Amino acid sequence: MSSDRLIYLPLGGAGEIGMNCYVYGHGKPRQERLIVVDLGVTFPDMDGSPGVDLILPDISWLKENRARIDAVFITHAHEDHVGAVGHTYEDLGVPIYARAFTANIARQKLSEFGVDAKAVTTVSKWPETVRAGPFTVGFLPISHSIPESSALVIDSPGGRIIHSGDFKLDKTPLVGEPWDPELWAEVSKDGIKALICDSTNVFSPNPGRSEAEVGPMVEELVANAPHMVVATTFASNVARVKTLAEAGERAGRSICLMGRAMRRMIEASIETGVLKGFPKVIGPEDASSIPRENLMLLVTGSQGERRAASAQLARGKYHGMTLKEGDLFLFSSKTIPGNERGVIRIMNQLSEQGVDVVDDSNGLYHVSGHANRPDLETLQDVVRPQVVIPMHGEHRHLREHVKMTQSKGRKGVLAVNGMMIELSGNEPKVAEYVETGRTYLDGTVQIGALDGIVRDRIRMALNGHVVVTVLIDEEDEPLGEPWCELMGLAETGRSRVPLTDVLEEDLTQFLGRAGDKIMTDDDKLEEGMRRIVRQTCQNEIGKKPEVTIVVSRLM
Amino acid sequence: MSSDRLIYLPLGGAGEIGMNCYVYGHGKPRQERLIVVDLGVTFPDMDGSPGVDLILPDISWLKENRARIDAVFITHAHEDHVGAVGHTYEDLGVPIYARAFTANIARQKLSEFGVDAKAVTTVSKWPETVRAGPFTVGFLPISHSIPESSALVIDSPGGRIIHSGDFKLDKTPLVGEPWDPELWAEVSKDGIKALICDSTNVFSPNPGRSEAEVGPMVEELVANAPHMVVATTFASNVARVKTLAEAGERAGRSICLMGRAMRRMIEASIETGVLKGFPKVIGPEDASSIPRENLMLLVTGSQGERRAASAQLARGKYHGMTLKEGDLFLFSSKTIPGNERGVIRIMNQLSEQGVDVVDDSNGLYHVSGHANRPDLETLQDVVRPQVVIPMHGEHRHLREHVKMTQSKGRKGVLAVNGMMIELSGNEPKVAEYVETGRTYLDGTVQIGALDGIVRDRIRMALNGHVVVTVLIDEEDEPLGEPWCELMGLAETGRSRVPLTDVLEEDLTQFLGRAGDKIMTDDDKLEEGMRRIVRQTCQNEIGKKPEVTIVVSRLM
Repeated sequence: MSSDRLIYLPLGGAGEIGMNCYVYGHGKPRQERLIVVDLGVTFPDMDGSPGVDLILPDISWLKENRARIDAVFITHAHEDHVGAVGHTYEDLGVPIYARAFTANIARQKLSEFGVDAKAVTTVSKWPETVRAGPFTVGFLPISHSIPESSALVIDSPGGRIIHSGDFKLDKTPLVGEPWDPELWAEVSKDGIKALICDSTNVFSPNPGRSEAEVGPMVEELVANAPHMVVATTFASNVARVKTLAEAGERAGRSICLMGRAMRRMIEASIETGVLKGFPKVIGPEDASSIPRENLMLLVTGSQGERRAASAQLARGKYHGMTLKEGDLFLFSSKTIPGNERGVIRIMNQLSEQGVDVVDDSNGLYHVSGHANRPDLETLQDVVRPQVVIPMHGEHRHLREHVKMTQSKGRKGVLAVNGMMIELSGNEPKVAEYVETGRTYLDGTVQIGALDGIVRDRIRMALNGHVVVTVLIDEEDEPLGEPWCELMGLAETGRSRVPLTDVLEEDLTQFLGRAGDKIMTDDDKLEEGMRRIVRQTCQNEIGKKPEVTIVVSRLM
Repeated sequence: MSSDRLIYLPLGGAGEIGMNCYVYGHGKPRQERLIVVDLGVTFPDMDGSPGVDLILPDISWLKENRARIDAVFITHAHEDHVGAVGHTYEDLGVPIYARAFTANIARQKLSEFGVDAKAVTTVSKWPETVRAGPFTVGFLPISHSIPESSALVIDSPGGRIIHSGDFKLDKTPLVGEPWDPELWAEVSKDGIKALICDSTNVFSPNPGRSEAEVGPMVEELVANAPHMVVATTFASNVARVKTLAEAGERAGRSICLMGRAMRRMIEASIETGVLKGFPKVIGPEDASSIPRENLMLLVTGSQGERRAASAQLARGKYHGMTLKEGDLFLFSSKTIPGNERGVIRIMNQLSEQGVDVVDDSNGLYHVSGHANRPDLETLQDVVRPQVVIPMHGEHRHLREHVKMTQSKGRKGVLAVNGMMIELSGNEPKVAEYVETGRTYLDGTVQIGALDGIVRDRIRMALNGHVVVTVLIDEEDEPLGEPWCELMGLAETGRSRVPLTDVLEEDLTQFLGRAGDKIMTDDDKLEEGMRRIVRQTCQNEIGKKPEVTIVVSRLM
């Protein structure tokens, strides 16, 4: 009797959009051999993770089970799928497999950590496959907003699974392979145990549009622009960058790529052969000598990132280039929810310079890289899986995707990060709950999201910080008066004298009243002084600050 | 020869959406008599104003010229128009004029500051007018998403100005007066010197839709809901609250208002007679005894505010009510840019509880309160002003509105906060630049946005805070070792020993090396120690923190 089971475990990306990390396993319970699909990151924000550089999935479970992992597969080269390969390599040390373009990007990331290029093995598209423990895995081409995005065909003794990766159903994607329903039907013809499927656009009711629809619109816009044209999009959307560049070229403009990511992505796609016939580009150093009406800049920063080329141009200058009245700035992109403030700030700065801004609000200059609801239905109809497990979505996306699946008479399972699903039997079921979470890259250090470090920063940002120093002599008496340093707090409040003076007076009085019990006990002393500081600040300025008390005893 | 001039000066709201505050003046240059239109607030966010409670326009210029101000007029009761009346009353002390509903809300705000209700004079709609210095001002009804919104007809010896306030062209607004083009044409027939006009929706290409279109859609949705229904919208959108309540009533549901603002707004509109025939409501204490399928809650918090009823329900419980699988939650509202994260968080929390969320993404359950581009054109055609000066918009809105105006062959002037425009001559021109800005209400204290206080908080949030204390004895020698307290920083870094230990060792070494020149000079000592702390942190954890050095000298 075999008690082998086939499991699916999302560690990141199911219940959020970002930091994708999924695990499949096959074998005896808790001894399954494992493969990992994607190691992505997500981005911090001031609301919840101020000062943090990058957010990674918490891979504690993978580290604990490192000996059972046979391989990592990366579906495509977006940051939320490949961004953590470098940061996690030392902990996992498992061979990584990807198609050529993705492998190129992954190797760049690994090299920043001193990891050799051989850590990544380049795999050709289906029908080529890779054996990893009990699994045989192939990269099934599918269209998306980056070259060589692939679904994974994951075979095991427990049956065939399709992990969709990020995708859209585009028959004319311009760069990379088109959606090929015959190929997908062929792969699925002997039965698919489970389809693990992208949910990003499940709330979009109309069929997705092709990348090819953008070109004619952009071409017309650029042809009619009287002065310089600047366009931004995700650098990794190589097809779009090509579309933009070709529109510029047809309008007789010299093309200049600005921003490190923009140049790197185009180089990677040329090197790996996925991009051919890209217009000739000039370097930023030559751009200023070209008449402005003959110039088109393709720049990074479509999401309002403060340090990207877009933001720098909007603030004034980038590589010697400045914008002028009547220039055209095209956002050939969608603003990701949460990035609105940054994008709007740039739009207003451009407006102040007299630059005409065009964005995707009329739907002409951008199409999404994800499958809309009818496309998700189409995919299910082609694949005809026994069960659909939505991934790559917030809870509301996953839930809607399950409801849609069920409304089509199929089984849908809602599995969020940490829910290990057993797929072996006739009914998928929750096998186990695994602890998951987020790890912050903070400077050069990884810290836990719940370590309290970032919580302290948020508190200082909301409440300000008071530092009190007091000297206590050998007789446990205060030596002089305590003194206060304020950071992030109003200097004066209700009494219209400096807040530090009021605090120091109240603290001096407290110390005068305090008996030996308090004066000899650092904890009591700190607690008492902290209470005074918070009360006095509440009275004076209506805020209770964070307080640090430093007691120095002369002994 | 009279050198009197007519001026317009925006102090808030022109170059931003929020904290509206506009000034009109007439008289000899720099001696003009002044009136103020609107005293609004805007709301802080973690990105730019963490810990701040409210953002007010900087009214320094008004305070300096207080003796010249004859009156304040409030166009309508939205926070961005009336929110600052209480905070500024002591400084201005000028009579306030508003229509009944607006006056009711303004008096509530003033009473929180102990200001008597008589500070506000209730004015009836046009043709009633108020004399204020050289000005005669009337409240011209116009539809908007709050009762009794009004444009102002501002007459002076320099001519008639129309200040649009916030508006849409709605012939069936359900509550309050409809758009009445005949009345507006009549008021404008002898010539309008300038139209100062709302720009919010200038980028919306289609004519605005009527409030009356929402009702049938909501009614159908609520009638078909199997379990409890919860709906949220801006509490001040009294027409919408009524529409929602009526849909509930027709579906045989008891209506319960939840959230302080929701109850207050409905009370104010009933008290002032603007709202009639509102369905009977039950108190929150009675709601739990009603079968859920017969209940509809109308709640505050459509913008994701953490403390509002919506957020509390999403997190679990509000006034004893909880949500259950299959309940319906309707956002009959648009998410204001910048609030997406908060709204999405609530939607996901609702999804986790199995609640079905419906929002305005399909355009069925919400209409905007502002005039779209074709409506702005219609208004210009009715008013036929000599010049249009856009207001109530970010720079990009104002600029687009000017461009649209000019494309119709009219004069448009782009005036942002602080630009005083002289309207007297044939050509409007910039008369003066006035310093403007933002004042933060922080706890109970008003601080300047550029005082550095909030900047310090942001820095602590991004970089963490290190406090170093060092004792120096009478011989200018360190007494013991310096010690460090960290807040918001990783505890260990590269050397894998506590960061405080590394810092204290490096600082001790620095003090050992430091000569008399440094040890006797507090500034040099602090600077040197700060540099060490930042360098060591950079080496250890890859971050340069904020540093406070406390030097205590025993003397």
